[in-house]
Amino acid sequence: MPERPYDENCPIWRVADVMGHPCTLMILRELFQDGSCRFKDFQSRSRGFSKNSVSKRLKALVDGGFVERELYESNPPRYIYRLTKRGRKLGPIMEAMFAWGSAEIGNQSR
Amino acid sequence: MPERPYDENCPIWRVADVMGHPCTLMILRELFQDGSCRFKDFQSRSRGFSKNSVSKRLKALVDGGFVERELYESNPPRYIYRLTKRGRKLGPIMEAMFAWGSAEIGNQSR
Repeated sequence: MPERPYDENCPIWRVADVMGHPCTLMILRELFQDGSCRFKDFQSRSRGFSKNSVSKRLKALVDGGFVERELYESNPPRYIYRLTKRGRKLGPIMEAMFAWGSAEIGNQSR
Repeated sequence: MPERPYDENCPIWRVADVMGHPCTLMILRELFQDGSCRFKDFQSRSRGFSKNSVSKRLKALVDGGFVERELYESNPPRYIYRLTKRGRKLGPIMEAMFAWGSAEIGNQSR
C-alpha cells in the first residue's frame, strides 16, 4: 500500500488512513463494546491476526490520539487500553457498520 | 492478512471483509459521488493505487454484488461501473465516514 494514495483533503481518505485495516476495525469493535481492554483481550478475540499486527494497529491508534493506555502492572509492564474523546467520535461510523453488518447476517439482535 | 481473521457472525468483520482496504473506499467514494465510472476514471482519481490494485478491488466489489458493470465499447472491451441496490446500502457507512472525515479536515462543505 502506498504511503499517501490520495489527497489529504479527501474526507474518505482520512477515514481510510485510520480505519483502512481489518485488524483496526476489530480493535475498535472491542473498545466500543467493552470500554477497556488489555492487550491479551485483543489477542484472544482477534484470532487470525498476529500479535505483531495487533500491536502495530494499536500503536497507530494510540499515536493518532484515538486510544490511550494506562499501566496497570509494572513488572512486567502491562497496559489497559481505552478510547479517547477523539476515538469515541468514530462511534457513528462503527454504528453504521454494525447496522449494515447485522442486516447482512440477518440478525439484528445485539 | 489471514483469509478469515474473525467470526463470520461478527457484523464488524462483515464490513471489514468488504471495506477493509483503502482502495475499496476510494472506489466507493467515486461511485457514491458520481453514480457511474469507467475504469480509467478510478485510475486517474486514485493516484497512488496501482492499476492492479484498483482492478482487484473492483472485481471483489462486482463479485460481492455491490457493483455492476456494463459494456460500453466492445473493441477493446470497456466497461462502465455502477453501484447495485446492495452496494447503495453501504451509503450510511459512507455518509458517517464523510461526516467524520470532513470534521477532521475542518471543512464541512461538500
